[in-house]
Amino acid sequence: MGKQAKTAIEPTREENYPEWYQEVIKASDMAEISPVRGCMVIKPWGYALWENIMRSLDDMFKTTGVKNAYFPLFIPINFLEKEAAHVEGFAKECAVVTHHRLEQDENGRLIPAGKLTEPLIVRPTSETIIGDSFSKWVKSYRDLPILINQWANVVRWEMRTRIFLRTSEFLWQEGHTVHATREEAIDRTQMMLEVYRKMAEEYLAIPVITGEKSEAEKFPGAETTTCIEAMMQDRKALQAGTSHFLGQNFARASEIKFQSDKEAEEYGWTTSWGSSTRLIGGLIMTHSDDNGVILPPRVASSHVVLMPIIRKDKDKQMVMDYTDELAARLRNISYYGYPIRVEVDARDIGGARNWEWIKKGIPLRVEIGPKDIASDSVFVGRRDKDPKDKSAMGKDAFADDICRILDEIQNTLFQRALDYRKAHTRNIDDKEAFDHFFTPENKERPEIHGGFAMSHWCGDGACEKKIKERLNVTVRCIPYDQENEDGKCIECGKPSGKRVVFAKAY
Amino acid sequence: MGKQAKTAIEPTREENYPEWYQEVIKASDMAEISPVRGCMVIKPWGYALWENIMRSLDDMFKTTGVKNAYFPLFIPINFLEKEAAHVEGFAKECAVVTHHRLEQDENGRLIPAGKLTEPLIVRPTSETIIGDSFSKWVKSYRDLPILINQWANVVRWEMRTRIFLRTSEFLWQEGHTVHATREEAIDRTQMMLEVYRKMAEEYLAIPVITGEKSEAEKFPGAETTTCIEAMMQDRKALQAGTSHFLGQNFARASEIKFQSDKEAEEYGWTTSWGSSTRLIGGLIMTHSDDNGVILPPRVASSHVVLMPIIRKDKDKQMVMDYTDELAARLRNISYYGYPIRVEVDARDIGGARNWEWIKKGIPLRVEIGPKDIASDSVFVGRRDKDPKDKSAMGKDAFADDICRILDEIQNTLFQRALDYRKAHTRNIDDKEAFDHFFTPENKERPEIHGGFAMSHWCGDGACEKKIKERLNVTVRCIPYDQENEDGKCIECGKPSGKRVVFAKAY
Repeated sequence: MGKQAKTAIEPTREENYPEWYQEVIKASDMAEISPVRGCMVIKPWGYALWENIMRSLDDMFKTTGVKNAYFPLFIPINFLEKEAAHVEGFAKECAVVTHHRLEQDENGRLIPAGKLTEPLIVRPTSETIIGDSFSKWVKSYRDLPILINQWANVVRWEMRTRIFLRTSEFLWQEGHTVHATREEAIDRTQMMLEVYRKMAEEYLAIPVITGEKSEAEKFPGAETTTCIEAMMQDRKALQAGTSHFLGQNFARASEIKFQSDKEAEEYGWTTSWGSSTRLIGGLIMTHSDDNGVILPPRVASSHVVLMPIIRKDKDKQMVMDYTDELAARLRNISYYGYPIRVEVDARDIGGARNWEWIKKGIPLRVEIGPKDIASDSVFVGRRDKDPKDKSAMGKDAFADDICRILDEIQNTLFQRALDYRKAHTRNIDDKEAFDHFFTPENKERPEIHGGFAMSHWCGDGACEKKIKERLNVTVRCIPYDQENEDGKCIECGKPSGKRVVFAKAY
Repeated sequence: MGKQAKTAIEPTREENYPEWYQEVIKASDMAEISPVRGCMVIKPWGYALWENIMRSLDDMFKTTGVKNAYFPLFIPINFLEKEAAHVEGFAKECAVVTHHRLEQDENGRLIPAGKLTEPLIVRPTSETIIGDSFSKWVKSYRDLPILINQWANVVRWEMRTRIFLRTSEFLWQEGHTVHATREEAIDRTQMMLEVYRKMAEEYLAIPVITGEKSEAEKFPGAETTTCIEAMMQDRKALQAGTSHFLGQNFARASEIKFQSDKEAEEYGWTTSWGSSTRLIGGLIMTHSDDNGVILPPRVASSHVVLMPIIRKDKDKQMVMDYTDELAARLRNISYYGYPIRVEVDARDIGGARNWEWIKKGIPLRVEIGPKDIASDSVFVGRRDKDPKDKSAMGKDAFADDICRILDEIQNTLFQRALDYRKAHTRNIDDKEAFDHFFTPENKERPEIHGGFAMSHWCGDGACEKKIKERLNVTVRCIPYDQENEDGKCIECGKPSGKRVVFAKAY
């Protein structure tokens, strides 16, 4: 990627990917850092994207019989102690509420007062507090399955934060289910993983690998963690959603018991599954370019901006009428069950207007001037093409065709990302080649490396640990779509039956 | 209200209204108390209602140009100190985060660690943290107006809690806007009050009085607080939504300044407006009866339950097919732009099934047995009528007519509530009569009193305070729809130009 033409975002991805990421978000006006350490402000352009993601996921959840509910923000400290692995995993960087009142000191400054006898944790995840409710809701096999989802904010104290990827507070959904049998819970785990795959691939246009986590990477307290993993443009892996089979671990910890149809008392089998505003970070790092964000139409904050061009006062009324009429017509068109989302931007700020929308990543930009109107046409720019590559279209043809054009953009984005992942994924069977693949050639650009290595692994955590220490590379997932194949562990040479995905990770 | 027939909820409203309220919620399965002091769990039946309320409000907000965003859960303690009245009002019963880590002590118990240099408050409301963002977003008059809403959880520590009415954590929306002129901000305050009125009256079927709060009752830091006030079945007032004109108070505190078109630097004019899960409490206390909750169709968690009646195994397939076909047909009908929400309950639990749905308040219950099917009809019960008052309807007629029937129920509920309020509202000009109106006749039933007194008030806070101390009655609002009229203050006898609403309040 040369830098012949000046781009809207500096630095470019090639020059400095992490800095580019910060700049591309700033330029898109999606979110900003807040004065509260580690927390973000999600601005309207970013939140509209999240609303569309939420709606799509929520519709899919409900289709599988899941219902929404809401549980307390606070978790009593002793709840976290109930499940041993969970304590290790989550009882570390938490926001702890210790007081329930403020008083003014002699200088009029506010100080904490009203100390709580038992501190409360701001939920980092809700297995324990939801488990407490479930233990009351479940009495008999007739009460099962219980299929619940919660849309909520959670807090995991982070020292080094990055907007949408790692923040102390983030928005997410967490699903929690209870089943009468092990098999049914495993099926549910897979069913929700499939919802996440569909969300990532068909809505966010992010190709993902589905599979299972290794022992070291799984959810604290889970029996199996399944996940979707995506490759970002810097070739690192991003975990975009996880679905956990929790066995009876949490049921035991929370006393979720039921009378079976054979009158025996049994523990329930539970699952949990989550995805978060992190999806937005993944979307940005999959599709954006050096001119800004590129939003996939299925979830885009808005689909099309109409920009009237008015050079003379006498044209104003005519151009605005034409624009407003087109806006109304487009808003009457349904795209996957919801109206086309249309912006009208009549600001007189020169070329900055066009560039603002490019940086925001809106799929379609439409210029409408007196000359276009004379030929009943519009001048259309697509965000998946070069900013200069714009073309005239008859107005009616544009309106009739807009859904097809949006689908074409959606498909282009997905295909590009898939091609990119394929180009940077290699089967590697040689340890030296493996190490070379993950070692940056340029020491000043430590983030540049090969991508995903599909290599054999014996399944031993010790090998995984050595690789992590040497290269900061981990087993991202044990993919479902890999054929069984005899091979040798890339680290120790012992026999292995399957390749796994090794990568650096967010 | 005699107690001839046994009712589903005990005690009845007549016997003990506060206890009835707890029991009716329990019986409806909408929510429950959580193990976290003062917090509630909103169960699926309650949350579905909230989702419908959210969607309706959100649509209305967006129609007025408002966009959603999201701001941090935590507020630095010094932010609360910025606005003097705000400190007084909100910096009292707050959840205070003082640590960001947990460690295990020698006994393995978790204890707070990692003390924060400055404590954080869990937001009780977000004027100050949003104001901080607005101060960065607003530079010029061209950036105005800013019209933002946030759906969020907030925490105000409460010692005595009541589900949906007063809980430490609750869900709400808070709107925040900035304008270039005082007039525009006042217009926005009124516009959002009208959204709340419409929500209450047209969706929740709760008649409300719109007006302004007295000095003593207004939002800490507001110049004017406008509100909607409703009468509950125990004749107490419930504030169901507020819209505040904040003048330049918060703009000064947060430094929200803009360059006017005359190049001068000016402070913005701000508003804020909110409504919460309290609306659910108001809905319950407006419409429910001694058999349980009654949900207004426009926001009901679900509209209709189909209950197949299967006495013989041989009928099963036929009855279920008929039921499923009707369910599918009803789900294809649009009611105010969204599909009819249908439950199918095929549980074989006898009469308990019917009563469960009565207690849940679903607008329509439909029984379908072999005899009904023989005449291609269904047996319909309406929640606004007596449980025994059920009638046969042709299946086609029912499906064709369901929207009209739902509207009829909606209107009946509104009219009943309006009649009730009128029956318990009195113009009172005599102090003795006023005191008598608010004094319970039966000392064992302190909650029973007259209702709303429309009486003259001189506007002096001292009179208001005396009345509050004597009767626990306050000025609920200075209503917009009252004609100006010469009169004398009910407390001090000084001249007054208008009647106000006096009531006991939630």
